[in-house]
Amino acid sequence: MSRFNAFYQQIAANGLAHWLTSLPTQLEQWEKEALHGDFKQWQKVLDHLPVSQAGLVELKTQVSFGDADALSDGARQRLQVLLKQLMPWRKGPFTLHGLTIDTEWRSDWKWDRVQPHLSPLAHKTVLDVGCGSGYHLWRMRGEGAGFVVGIDPSQLFYCQFEAIKHFNPDPAVHLLPVGIDDLPALKAFDTVFSMGVLYHRRSPIDFLTQLKQQLKPGGELVLETLVVEGDVHTVLVPTDRYAKMRNVWFIPSVPALLLWLERVGFKEARLVDIGLTSLDEQRRTDWMENESLIDFLDPSDHSKTIEGYPAPLRAVIIARN
Amino acid sequence: MSRFNAFYQQIAANGLAHWLTSLPTQLEQWEKEALHGDFKQWQKVLDHLPVSQAGLVELKTQVSFGDADALSDGARQRLQVLLKQLMPWRKGPFTLHGLTIDTEWRSDWKWDRVQPHLSPLAHKTVLDVGCGSGYHLWRMRGEGAGFVVGIDPSQLFYCQFEAIKHFNPDPAVHLLPVGIDDLPALKAFDTVFSMGVLYHRRSPIDFLTQLKQQLKPGGELVLETLVVEGDVHTVLVPTDRYAKMRNVWFIPSVPALLLWLERVGFKEARLVDIGLTSLDEQRRTDWMENESLIDFLDPSDHSKTIEGYPAPLRAVIIARN
Amino acid sequence: MSRFNAFYQQIAANGLAHWLTSLPTQLEQWEKEALHGDFKQWQKVLDHLPVSQAGLVELKTQVSFGDADALSDGARQRLQVLLKQLMPWRKGPFTLHGLTIDTEWRSDWKWDRVQPHLSPLAHKTVLDVGCGSGYHLWRMRGEGAGFVVGIDPSQLFYCQFEAIKHFNPDPAVHLLPVGIDDLPALKAFDTVFSMGVLYHRRSPIDFLTQLKQQLKPGGELVLETLVVEGDVHTVLVPTDRYAKMRNVWFIPSVPALLLWLERVGFKEARLVDIGLTSLDEQRRTDWMENESLIDFLDPSDHSKTIEGYPAPLRAVIIARN
Amino acid sequence: MSRFNAFYQQIAANGLAHWLTSLPTQLEQWEKEALHGDFKQWQKVLDHLPVSQAGLVELKTQVSFGDADALSDGARQRLQVLLKQLMPWRKGPFTLHGLTIDTEWRSDWKWDRVQPHLSPLAHKTVLDVGCGSGYHLWRMRGEGAGFVVGIDPSQLFYCQFEAIKHFNPDPAVHLLPVGIDDLPALKAFDTVFSMGVLYHRRSPIDFLTQLKQQLKPGGELVLETLVVEGDVHTVLVPTDRYAKMRNVWFIPSVPALLLWLERVGFKEARLVDIGLTSLDEQRRTDWMENESLIDFLDPSDHSKTIEGYPAPLRAVIIARN
Repeated sequence: MSRFNAFYQQIAANGLAHWLTSLPTQLEQWEKEALHGDFKQWQKVLDHLPVSQAGLVELKTQVSFGDADALSDGARQRLQVLLKQLMPWRKGPFTLHGLTIDTEWRSDWKWDRVQPHLSPLAHKTVLDVGCGSGYHLWRMRGEGAGFVVGIDPSQLFYCQFEAIKHFNPDPAVHLLPVGIDDLPALKAFDTVFSMGVLYHRRSPIDFLTQLKQQLKPGGELVLETLVVEGDVHTVLVPTDRYAKMRNVWFIPSVPALLLWLERVGFKEARLVDIGLTSLDEQRRTDWMENESLIDFLDPSDHSKTIEGYPAPLRAVIIARN
Repeated sequence: MSRFNAFYQQIAANGLAHWLTSLPTQLEQWEKEALHGDFKQWQKVLDHLPVSQAGLVELKTQVSFGDADALSDGARQRLQVLLKQLMPWRKGPFTLHGLTIDTEWRSDWKWDRVQPHLSPLAHKTVLDVGCGSGYHLWRMRGEGAGFVVGIDPSQLFYCQFEAIKHFNPDPAVHLLPVGIDDLPALKAFDTVFSMGVLYHRRSPIDFLTQLKQQLKPGGELVLETLVVEGDVHTVLVPTDRYAKMRNVWFIPSVPALLLWLERVGFKEARLVDIGLTSLDEQRRTDWMENESLIDFLDPSDHSKTIEGYPAPLRAVIIARN
Repeated sequence: MSRFNAFYQQIAANGLAHWLTSLPTQLEQWEKEALHGDFKQWQKVLDHLPVSQAGLVELKTQVSFGDADALSDGARQRLQVLLKQLMPWRKGPFTLHGLTIDTEWRSDWKWDRVQPHLSPLAHKTVLDVGCGSGYHLWRMRGEGAGFVVGIDPSQLFYCQFEAIKHFNPDPAVHLLPVGIDDLPALKAFDTVFSMGVLYHRRSPIDFLTQLKQQLKPGGELVLETLVVEGDVHTVLVPTDRYAKMRNVWFIPSVPALLLWLERVGFKEARLVDIGLTSLDEQRRTDWMENESLIDFLDPSDHSKTIEGYPAPLRAVIIARN
Repeated sequence: MSRFNAFYQQIAANGLAHWLTSLPTQLEQWEKEALHGDFKQWQKVLDHLPVSQAGLVELKTQVSFGDADALSDGARQRLQVLLKQLMPWRKGPFTLHGLTIDTEWRSDWKWDRVQPHLSPLAHKTVLDVGCGSGYHLWRMRGEGAGFVVGIDPSQLFYCQFEAIKHFNPDPAVHLLPVGIDDLPALKAFDTVFSMGVLYHRRSPIDFLTQLKQQLKPGGELVLETLVVEGDVHTVLVPTDRYAKMRNVWFIPSVPALLLWLERVGFKEARLVDIGLTSLDEQRRTDWMENESLIDFLDPSDHSKTIEGYPAPLRAVIIARN
């Protein structure tokens, strides 16, 4: 009995049925492999979450599920102990029965900058590629999206998402533990998000093409990635690490990125937001105790990474298929 | 948009969800290939069937769909012209809005002999391997089966089934155009039928094993096949044809067949019916104008086939997994 | 560096080059898996075999490699200790530098009965399906065969063969650790042997077809298998074990077997030898200390197996493709 | 009988035997597909080439096979007619029995610039990725390389190579009609060349990694590609075409390219040659009647392509694995 049967049942009935020719095979393989390592431990966390009654569901301005007074202080304390076993928590914040998971990122700030530029999401079918723990999936649903799918190969992020969903088992919001390379050309989504992924890809052109292939004709891409200052020919490839990350490959300028999007066939690509990540937006918390942005920057010059590259500058670009 | 999406949606919600890891891929392949040959012509027949109103649905004593007076004589005449384009009709009979498809076989007679021996089918999940046009699927449903699946790789039989189902679009009755070799070990059916298939298989042991693998623990097999007189060591393998059929391999005696069933792990195998096929039960009709049983027998001695083998003797055996 | 490179090099230069499209992939997989279990221990045996000088090579009347006086008594003693680590030795006997491996079977007796009926093997390309430790491969080579390939999936038999070949590294004699199901339709051998395999197959018809597909047009099949007395319709399928073997499926009469061969397309099938296996031909020895034929027969009636079936009767049949 | 058997035989005997686990399957597929389209016509050209006697073989300063006086003027005329059926001829020139194929490119000039910088090729195993008609394969062999393999998926280039090889059937020089994506990580070549390919790849990082995986530890990469002026952050991605070519993706500066090489793990990467392609080196001839460089440049300013990009500037870089 696969944990994804409910998802299969839904896509068999909507415009994603062609996904059934590959997804169940991939997830069956995943379920076999997920039986190893820490996954069992994380699964236990999920199994011990308190029974959740219908209650508060706030998605529009924040992600907050469950009435605070439905849980005793002791029960809330136990919930905190459980959820901390799923650390590090990176994308959020989430509030569950009054307990706030203070994540490394204020992903809500990013959403507030992005959301005003989106085509309306109401009743739309939406994909988020590299969704992490799925924070933005809930905000998309909060805007009225009809069917929201996030993909992220991380087993931990999958478990974090399931922990959150436990308190709001919305059948229209899903996270699948697969990567973009696992997806066929679905051509089925109204809006495809990808935030914080492109610079991790060895082949940005192939990645942009893969994103395009998930969109319906006329669909909308929302792309957030690291950029550098420069003209249409400027691309930074770190010799080794960038902000202590080993797997950063291409950081284009905004003009270069717009050109790439045009080259693979997107239309009307435009910059809607750009800014340096602030030390308030990405930082160590009680729920993410590892190094964070402050540790990745040159201590004597916050305009540079510790390797001497320009500090993280993030742009949001919207384009049309 | 696959024609099988409704089926996928249903099995994702019942105990057959694990079938999703192979079936959609197989049927996608089938749909690509089905675009060739006569299939397009048969599909046109389906597209031109008259709109069917809710009306008579008789499954308990015969298969009869649609009120006779809901169709004018002219419309019924046109319906007959359409359905004759799907000839030859082998298994039946079917009655549609008063028009009877008089098939080569009186499959209802076989059902009447088999049905009294079955464990109750009410609410059961049932598979019919080699179901032909699907006559018995409807009768299984008539006994209250909750979900009925037939498999048969013939594209013509698939179209005949769809033509019949057009007049009673029951979501619990399905025919899939695949063969037994396409099935994983589903271990999911309460009852598995296979009538008239075993003697066509080059490997009867593998076939019996495949049937067993479709059953739940404790599930019931209903097996009908050609047999010969003889003891536990008697098996007829025709040198060439048997009753003009090229693809007949093993015709065991009843004791040999019971032994085979025991050997592959079935329990309580027992003979419930045996008899020579009569010239009334299998014969040429207006809906099957090719040769039939009378042409396969020795004209001077109906106890022998035209090749000199014993005339077709059919046994029904029931066993438990 | 694969241990099979020399074989690949040879088949690339003879009529078996098309085998390269599947065999290296299969054997690469095998080499990865062979690293587990007892194989490492057996490989150590091979690595410690004494350096072999050119010397006696007797293949025509027996399999005897190496001069006796080229090895000291102490060295021969050590050789015996090594080779006993590859027990049980079933097919033989082999003599190495005067040390005789007294195997369970007197396979030489079988060869003496079969050989007079064979089409000349001189310069022929020959396959032995289910060759065990490869005793008959050497005898085929002794008759002048130009290229001799045995297949047997057992890793132990492979190591036994390599141990023997160590003392006569003839580049025209090979054992590959694969099964008949791994072979494509090579249509490339002059003679295909299969001795002692058919009754272990769940599907004898498929097995005979696979053997046929390995032969050139006009090539010769040499088939040895268990048979029972009876007419063209007689086939024994044991309910459970036969002579304590779990995996015995079909034991036909000779007329039934000849019919099967005709049915799958062989020509001129004929019986060339038949006989009960004697207690001298198959028995426990110092090199095979498990149960042997005497333990498989009814102690009070050697004409029956311990299960009450007819005692092992073996027939050799030759047919033409 | 595959046309590649001789190649398989050779690699089974040298350090490339592990290639047998994938190559024969790929080439069998290729041979099936090669039966379509113009290939048959090209094969006829090969079948009608005149019988070639041993004679002149000049590889050191040019590629010239066969004595001029071994062919009559009429035969040479017929040879020209045949070879022109394989037009367009891009890489060369070749001289066969005194007949010179005047190709679009003076590939000998490129070789003369590259060769002085190479580690000695004598007795080396060499790969040329994207070898075209194979001109440089012969020059590598002229430097004493022991085993030379070119890969290029173009069926026309394969036939051109086979036509040339007909006049010097050197068993140490091979062209395989496969692409770099078909190659496993062979880790087996002393030197890997790739000239004129990188800018055609959607993912230059993946391409450089694939090249690296073909080299032995310490092996040498010889990379020639289009570059632009600029610093380590400069990369040109054409919005649409570059010099009328649709499939140009990344044109880095030399510093950027050196950085990419370092990033994927190459050592000691260094520029050994750079220069604008001259109108004498790439031009229309009697053997290549399509557009050439002159047509790709801005008529009023040869320092620019017709699209306004910098004119083709080509760099040769050598690096160590």
